[in-house]
Amino acid sequence: MSDRVVLAFSGGLDTSVAIPFLAEKINAEVIAVAVDVGQGGEDMEVIRKRALDCGAVESVVVDAREEFATDFCVPALQANALYMDRYPLVSALSRPLIVKHLAAAAKRYGGTIVSHGCTGKGNDQVRFEAGLAALHPELKVIAPARDYAWTRDKAIAYAEEKDLPIETTKKNPYSIDQNIWGRAVETGFLEDIWNGPIEDVYSYTANPADPREPDEVIITFQSGVPVALDGRPLSPFQIIAELNERAGAQGVGRLDMVEDRLVGIKSREVYEAPGAITLITAHMELENVTVERDLARFKRSVDQRWGELVYDGLWFSPLKKALDAFIADAQQHVTGEIRMTLHGGRAVVTGRRSETSLYDFSLATYDTGDSFDQSLAKGFVELWSLPSKIAAARDARA
Amino acid sequence: MSDRVVLAFSGGLDTSVAIPFLAEKINAEVIAVAVDVGQGGEDMEVIRKRALDCGAVESVVVDAREEFATDFCVPALQANALYMDRYPLVSALSRPLIVKHLAAAAKRYGGTIVSHGCTGKGNDQVRFEAGLAALHPELKVIAPARDYAWTRDKAIAYAEEKDLPIETTKKNPYSIDQNIWGRAVETGFLEDIWNGPIEDVYSYTANPADPREPDEVIITFQSGVPVALDGRPLSPFQIIAELNERAGAQGVGRLDMVEDRLVGIKSREVYEAPGAITLITAHMELENVTVERDLARFKRSVDQRWGELVYDGLWFSPLKKALDAFIADAQQHVTGEIRMTLHGGRAVVTGRRSETSLYDFSLATYDTGDSFDQSLAKGFVELWSLPSKIAAARDARA
Amino acid sequence: MSDRVVLAFSGGLDTSVAIPFLAEKINAEVIAVAVDVGQGGEDMEVIRKRALDCGAVESVVVDAREEFATDFCVPALQANALYMDRYPLVSALSRPLIVKHLAAAAKRYGGTIVSHGCTGKGNDQVRFEAGLAALHPELKVIAPARDYAWTRDKAIAYAEEKDLPIETTKKNPYSIDQNIWGRAVETGFLEDIWNGPIEDVYSYTANPADPREPDEVIITFQSGVPVALDGRPLSPFQIIAELNERAGAQGVGRLDMVEDRLVGIKSREVYEAPGAITLITAHMELENVTVERDLARFKRSVDQRWGELVYDGLWFSPLKKALDAFIADAQQHVTGEIRMTLHGGRAVVTGRRSETSLYDFSLATYDTGDSFDQSLAKGFVELWSLPSKIAAARDARA
Amino acid sequence: MSDRVVLAFSGGLDTSVAIPFLAEKINAEVIAVAVDVGQGGEDMEVIRKRALDCGAVESVVVDAREEFATDFCVPALQANALYMDRYPLVSALSRPLIVKHLAAAAKRYGGTIVSHGCTGKGNDQVRFEAGLAALHPELKVIAPARDYAWTRDKAIAYAEEKDLPIETTKKNPYSIDQNIWGRAVETGFLEDIWNGPIEDVYSYTANPADPREPDEVIITFQSGVPVALDGRPLSPFQIIAELNERAGAQGVGRLDMVEDRLVGIKSREVYEAPGAITLITAHMELENVTVERDLARFKRSVDQRWGELVYDGLWFSPLKKALDAFIADAQQHVTGEIRMTLHGGRAVVTGRRSETSLYDFSLATYDTGDSFDQSLAKGFVELWSLPSKIAAARDARA
Repeated sequence: MSDRVVLAFSGGLDTSVAIPFLAEKINAEVIAVAVDVGQGGEDMEVIRKRALDCGAVESVVVDAREEFATDFCVPALQANALYMDRYPLVSALSRPLIVKHLAAAAKRYGGTIVSHGCTGKGNDQVRFEAGLAALHPELKVIAPARDYAWTRDKAIAYAEEKDLPIETTKKNPYSIDQNIWGRAVETGFLEDIWNGPIEDVYSYTANPADPREPDEVIITFQSGVPVALDGRPLSPFQIIAELNERAGAQGVGRLDMVEDRLVGIKSREVYEAPGAITLITAHMELENVTVERDLARFKRSVDQRWGELVYDGLWFSPLKKALDAFIADAQQHVTGEIRMTLHGGRAVVTGRRSETSLYDFSLATYDTGDSFDQSLAKGFVELWSLPSKIAAARDARA
Repeated sequence: MSDRVVLAFSGGLDTSVAIPFLAEKINAEVIAVAVDVGQGGEDMEVIRKRALDCGAVESVVVDAREEFATDFCVPALQANALYMDRYPLVSALSRPLIVKHLAAAAKRYGGTIVSHGCTGKGNDQVRFEAGLAALHPELKVIAPARDYAWTRDKAIAYAEEKDLPIETTKKNPYSIDQNIWGRAVETGFLEDIWNGPIEDVYSYTANPADPREPDEVIITFQSGVPVALDGRPLSPFQIIAELNERAGAQGVGRLDMVEDRLVGIKSREVYEAPGAITLITAHMELENVTVERDLARFKRSVDQRWGELVYDGLWFSPLKKALDAFIADAQQHVTGEIRMTLHGGRAVVTGRRSETSLYDFSLATYDTGDSFDQSLAKGFVELWSLPSKIAAARDARA
Repeated sequence: MSDRVVLAFSGGLDTSVAIPFLAEKINAEVIAVAVDVGQGGEDMEVIRKRALDCGAVESVVVDAREEFATDFCVPALQANALYMDRYPLVSALSRPLIVKHLAAAAKRYGGTIVSHGCTGKGNDQVRFEAGLAALHPELKVIAPARDYAWTRDKAIAYAEEKDLPIETTKKNPYSIDQNIWGRAVETGFLEDIWNGPIEDVYSYTANPADPREPDEVIITFQSGVPVALDGRPLSPFQIIAELNERAGAQGVGRLDMVEDRLVGIKSREVYEAPGAITLITAHMELENVTVERDLARFKRSVDQRWGELVYDGLWFSPLKKALDAFIADAQQHVTGEIRMTLHGGRAVVTGRRSETSLYDFSLATYDTGDSFDQSLAKGFVELWSLPSKIAAARDARA
Repeated sequence: MSDRVVLAFSGGLDTSVAIPFLAEKINAEVIAVAVDVGQGGEDMEVIRKRALDCGAVESVVVDAREEFATDFCVPALQANALYMDRYPLVSALSRPLIVKHLAAAAKRYGGTIVSHGCTGKGNDQVRFEAGLAALHPELKVIAPARDYAWTRDKAIAYAEEKDLPIETTKKNPYSIDQNIWGRAVETGFLEDIWNGPIEDVYSYTANPADPREPDEVIITFQSGVPVALDGRPLSPFQIIAELNERAGAQGVGRLDMVEDRLVGIKSREVYEAPGAITLITAHMELENVTVERDLARFKRSVDQRWGELVYDGLWFSPLKKALDAFIADAQQHVTGEIRMTLHGGRAVVTGRRSETSLYDFSLATYDTGDSFDQSLAKGFVELWSLPSKIAAARDARA
């Protein structure tokens, strides 16, 4: 009896070609699994059928959009996850979700092998395989691009030879990954890091330089979870989707950076994440209002480590789980409203309002109503400075 | 013989009034010290004379603009210092410099007391007094606003009573501190954190929403120090000043946030820092290109701690000095050029170029010339995932 | 009507004298609250009556021994809490517990003021007052030693004048605080940090240099909580008490150090903590066996911060609570047995055994049964080294 | 022309056999390099000749004892380097030194390949190869044990077949690595982590339980470097060697732990490091006396990261270099004397004395001469507690 391979299926050329290739190469039956994480583009039913047409014995589509938003994007938001202070972890968030559904499909359909389309120099191979190692360690993994040095040219030739029902003529210069949390673009000319991106690269965002009217939005959070826009209760997925539209229309969320990959190299990446950047900006300011200083300071190091871990493929690691517990505790009172202006590529907070605010007008004001006892300051300042003062006296003496 | 008080003199109402007040209250001779940190506004010579007219026995003006830029702003830039990920430490940087000159003046003129205009609920009192404790611990400190509950109304009445040569009629609703690194504004209506700032609040920046042509600038760094703009060699002070103009004209660098003060309260702050934000954005990206991954990751925690320490008034602390040594080492190869577009409130990196780059095209490219050996990935991924895998198997078992 | 003062009552001279002193000084009724945290010494009922004899209107004894062990010592154990890598937070743990009972007594008896015996240069005043600020912020605090410069000599004179029922003749050169987690000693001759401690200083521990037979103990943990000794199920309090006896008899747990106090000075401290040191040693090794590497590495920084916070009086702070959530998650699988030899001042782990172990014999062994695939190493090593390699090549070039 | 292989040569069976094996297998000339890091045992000249007798074309012995102590052990001491709070990095320190001399030999003798005896599941392969990648990236590496699945049995058979001048009869159950900083032992029966070590395992240390007289030693440090014992000026190597003798005779420095290896597994390790543990204990206490609180707190995280990096083979990494700069700055005033009692397996500090001490008797004492102004405490405590207090009030409200 032949092995069954569970294939992470995107509907594109590479994974379409992988179906007959794997069947032939390792004499396996292929189960195609396509996961909808809000990437848009082709209809998922068309994608499902294509896999069957290419020879898959089963073809499954999982609508994971709400799950992705709630269980993956919201935790990233609560961690203010920006790898290298910039990148909101677009692909790094979808991979563990896809892994979860691949492992489930392997269990359901008796798969013993998983296959994905990643190369050997990117981060996604790690995210897939570290996730599988945690969720279903018995599975073997085949990555044709990496393990058989499979290239796009080979794929086109193979598709034509096998007469596969997939378009191979259109040369797309862009390598793209997208989901509801954002969009990543790589392309040859951007590999020269002195070159700037061109408008053609972008799809989620309009040109921020184009003149238009600003958009004002009020985002409501409940314990760190976005729950409403402009007072309308919405699911996290709906909120992200609407903000992708509205902030995207204002050119918010374009990123262009040189990035440290887990495999040890630096790469140039261009991203668009209008909803993610808007939400993280709002969430950070609501934390400024509702989270106590020492907790906020330590949380920055937790947030940084969370982002690194998830970027590095360790979503299912014990450390990630313990950091989640810390963050969940810290989110308890992150409740309230943030008003923002979206305009010209900027998402700017203009107001904040919270029942659980730690901002105390009577302590902060310099006007009538000031309740801060300034006489406390002298003792505080002297003892606060004392260690430095003693050290400075020692240094002067030495 | 009477004591001599060294007064941090701004030329404004409060510190002008402090001259006769201190003379009277503690029977002291007042030495006024005004430090030019690029705050602009009145001519420094006018300020110097005003102190004498108010009764100071000596009045000193220190042109510390280049010193401030080189010894205070550049280290902050190298630390990417953004308190709470936002605020580039405008006032927190000038205070230790002013302290240095106050301590020097006390030594030169036989001062035994220092006086400053800070209140008892702000951060600046700490910065002044922690600095003095380190540099000249024998000095006593008097802060009239804090220690004698001195208010603006009292100051106006006193000025009129003493017929001091200072204008008291114009009611300025804003409390402002500014220097070459930026500008801080506080005012009553912003103490309601739901209120957004109005255009009138800003002075260093034009409205980012106004239509205008973009400005492109190339910033050259040498070991983490900005040394040229568009190929023209300039001093750090000149670079910051020019970028304040150019980025300010594009509306870059406005900040509006709720902030954790050292004295334990949250306050609402509005800042403008067009040059600082532009330079920090450029410097961070050049670090992305030239600093190795593990160093970059650890440096984030060093940078955060550096910003907290300086915000908290501990510029002259032993920890600050040791963090400086770390940062200096990390800056060694932060050399190269960053091209940016300044427009519509955004300072966006569009290109980077460096002789000391760690970006390796041949390792990064997916095109011809790829030298990355993908066969190494499998072993890496498996051992990288192994601890999580073992833990996941244990968790499943338990 | 007079105020009611809730007094943290130890039964010693200082707090006995405080009863009539407070009654007289501020015309208040005194409610004495003595908390049993396993400090041993006098019978608690004797202490309770003494307060009444000194004039207290109410005198309450709280047996908080199990509560202290379970809710304060066990969390410290799970955090491996050793301030400055040495001090297991003896007094710092009991203070928040006492605060809890003082606040409860204030609510029950209508107290509006709390009084404690701490001085103004120690840590305990902070722990009392920071705790009260969190639990019952309306209470005022009076610390006679600090606020009225009350000294031991004054206390003796006052006791004799008022003919208080307390012995004042015996001059005790030691200032001692003790509870079930350990014992702290300060005394004049140890303020010269070149002087070593003498045997007379110690009470919980025998001289480690005395010859005796070793003692072997097996400690069982369940999710980070000690639950049995040598197979006998016991409460945390019973375990700590028994280990104080057994490890104390072997001279385990003496500490002598220069310590950084929160108020900014360094002090010399001598501690004994035989049970605490034994348990922490065991717990750390069980974590080595059961906690995944990345989690263990990050937990060290969490543990350090936890210890600093609690030392610094911030038991009831939001950050402490979020760190607790992290630690609780990390303890989930810290289950198993640690065998130790207690002898000659040393508590040495000799064996560990756990159903939730991450130690995998087949991966670790160099003998028959080795299942580690060494062929994975090459790829791992090369990519692990790659960032350093690229940087070294750059450095050589530059 | 044949390649030249530079072989890290220990004189033992494995690396002796490697000489003819490599010559045969890859048709190479072997240059044997033996580095004296104070490992003791056989005479280095005997080792040198054995390599030639086994067929090496060159055989070099490097006396690196002082270099190892000064450039590798002293930095580890200054970082208080204890991996997992226990292990003083014995082998992890010698590997980068050996790498340095291998790279130098490769340059001198025209080697293009380096060979070492490490397996594929240990840390040392990483330390060798990461080091070589940094110092001499063109070199290829061959590790026969890993790359050709070479085992001890194979080695014995090969040695007998080739009639190599090396004893193969004595079956040594221990796998040992030792140098001046310590000694590591692995052996089959310790792979059962419930088994305790037996006396036979140890060589650097006497049984701590044996009765003997204590030994008192005074260690002098100058800026973090040990410079004298009992007032006698000595080199770092001499100090470590003498303390290995004296502390070893008292049974100090035995360690037994489960450890997280870089390759992802947990292993059981037994170490002896009498000199290292004594010195680190002394150095930590001298830091307690001479290093300011905030610096000391942050340095713990720097020390931890330093230890992890060096354990993980990244001695030559950019981050290690920047951490060194931090540590060097922090060591500036770590000058003074520590008196210790060595006895019964314990190295106990009994006194400390320093011209650069931050311990201030007049601030610390509770006796006559107290100069601490207790009136400062109230303001300090209130503002220190303020953020927690505001948060607690919010929590109560919410």
